[in-house]
Amino acid sequence: MGIVVNLESAKNQSPSLDLMVNLTNKDLLNVNELIVRCMNSPVNLIPQIAGHIVAAGGKRIRPMMTLTAARLCGYRGKRHIALAACVEFIHTATLLHDDVVDESDLRRGLASANVVWGNQASVLVGDFLFSRAFELMVDDGSLDVLRVLSSASSVIAEGEVQQLTTSNNTETGETAYMEVIRSKTAQLFSAACRIGALVADRPKVEEDALETYGMNLGITFQLIDDTLDYSAKQATLGKSIGDDFRDGKITLPVILAFRRGNDKERTFWKRTLEDLEQTEDDLAYAIQLMGKHGALEDAIKRAHHYGAIARDAMGIFDDGPEKQALIDAIDFCIDRAY
Amino acid sequence: MGIVVNLESAKNQSPSLDLMVNLTNKDLLNVNELIVRCMNSPVNLIPQIAGHIVAAGGKRIRPMMTLTAARLCGYRGKRHIALAACVEFIHTATLLHDDVVDESDLRRGLASANVVWGNQASVLVGDFLFSRAFELMVDDGSLDVLRVLSSASSVIAEGEVQQLTTSNNTETGETAYMEVIRSKTAQLFSAACRIGALVADRPKVEEDALETYGMNLGITFQLIDDTLDYSAKQATLGKSIGDDFRDGKITLPVILAFRRGNDKERTFWKRTLEDLEQTEDDLAYAIQLMGKHGALEDAIKRAHHYGAIARDAMGIFDDGPEKQALIDAIDFCIDRAY
Repeated sequence: MGIVVNLESAKNQSPSLDLMVNLTNKDLLNVNELIVRCMNSPVNLIPQIAGHIVAAGGKRIRPMMTLTAARLCGYRGKRHIALAACVEFIHTATLLHDDVVDESDLRRGLASANVVWGNQASVLVGDFLFSRAFELMVDDGSLDVLRVLSSASSVIAEGEVQQLTTSNNTETGETAYMEVIRSKTAQLFSAACRIGALVADRPKVEEDALETYGMNLGITFQLIDDTLDYSAKQATLGKSIGDDFRDGKITLPVILAFRRGNDKERTFWKRTLEDLEQTEDDLAYAIQLMGKHGALEDAIKRAHHYGAIARDAMGIFDDGPEKQALIDAIDFCIDRAY
Repeated sequence: MGIVVNLESAKNQSPSLDLMVNLTNKDLLNVNELIVRCMNSPVNLIPQIAGHIVAAGGKRIRPMMTLTAARLCGYRGKRHIALAACVEFIHTATLLHDDVVDESDLRRGLASANVVWGNQASVLVGDFLFSRAFELMVDDGSLDVLRVLSSASSVIAEGEVQQLTTSNNTETGETAYMEVIRSKTAQLFSAACRIGALVADRPKVEEDALETYGMNLGITFQLIDDTLDYSAKQATLGKSIGDDFRDGKITLPVILAFRRGNDKERTFWKRTLEDLEQTEDDLAYAIQLMGKHGALEDAIKRAHHYGAIARDAMGIFDDGPEKQALIDAIDFCIDRAY
């Protein structure tokens, strides 16, 4: 059953998720199989839409967290497979529901993943995946797991609603922003890690450590994500930037630049992000203002702070490939900014 | 603890929910209190939107079903309060998600309950209520209840997606229509009744009977609802009719009129419901065609069929006010059509 991992070979390279991918490779295949099986429905539109978003869907970082945390805690059974799938279903449902747009968005001509099937289908398939997640948890039979993930779900929804109220509002401060990203992003990372300890039936101190790790990794992840949307490096790599700017999202780089700016600059932020009156050169000017005020560097500094907390939370665990993989994930998150 | 109910006085009146309302009156106050408490959130928009829809929200017929079924099964504890609230939360979340509209709807100028706060808020507050329902179930601690309601939720979502595929499609037959209303409407009635038996820890035969009752009552309810949308009597009462017609929903009255109609009539149905090209007189003509083909009467006949099954399912229970209240509910559903 042992997996041979050469820790040495991973050194002197830029931080990556490779170790975690290697460690969870076999389990993740089972997770993916289960996901495909659970999306099955006689209503064809469901596997179509769900398949589109689940199959296309990213790096599976959240379910990998559950799988790795369970193994870190010495779990050797199979329950973590279904629970990792639950985490991915909840994440996917959230993505589908995030795609829902309003008339105002449509007027602004934004494209969205839901354009192919429409708002209604996105919402309903999201609901289906969400319900499926709970069915899987019920099959698993742990009320503790159900408590962690149902509570995480309502906190996520709360965070998403709060984000609506901060959107296009330049008065939003760092505290409100942090509340939003803790809820909408970090909560699911935290829950994903915590259920790894739960399934292994480990002492509360390990459950708490993994919860702290996940929460702070999630915050780090979102902080970096929010800087990347204004990153010149991203632009040179051909990746799209400026989505948050066009939506008028108030992220930390904006908050810092706004607070540190003069009246003229604040008028610019209000026009572009509150009134959404934007011209072609505005994104470049926004990035320039962020540079002037060190807003991106300092947002990344904040990310380092939370990354350090995540790293220290892992201190109670013995060294080994799983612990290393989780620490690599912190470095990977932060390294994306450079 | 005994509630004095004069069964005689209820006779010779048109069927009503009065008996059920009287029997559940005190419990329902506790349900409402719990609902208000659970909607609380530091994010103000949540109690605002949820309060708007939950407070305004109808007759509370689904939670009353849970309360009455539990009492019918001899349950004397307090758990049914929270479970009735779960049922109402799931129902409300579904309503909020039903309000979500697409660009195409907006172009057609439809108003919707979500116009005040927008699609995104409707979706997210629905998610919040849905998660809250699962948190309440976890607090209750019964995996059986969690299984029934998580499974009901995924069937409801499946039914709603299927309804999208039948909408504006005059090829939809009675079988597909029945599948949709079983899933999207009757499933929650069925689950609401079934958990009454579960909480009372009654033999499976009683659980099955209440499930059958709820399923068939739900079908009856939806069939009648779908005829009321074309009912001349509703129109004379000043109630709005024609919503389904304007949306191009394919309900049983349409299916029967379409199948029994001639080519010219089918062209009319296709123009109005598939292409949504409607003139002022089209609704009146649709109702006229339904009259010509007995579509409304026959849809009501179908409702009688399912109502009879619901009534017979109650046969295994001893006579008493709760049983009478559930039977009255069937008659009340059907009587709305006359």
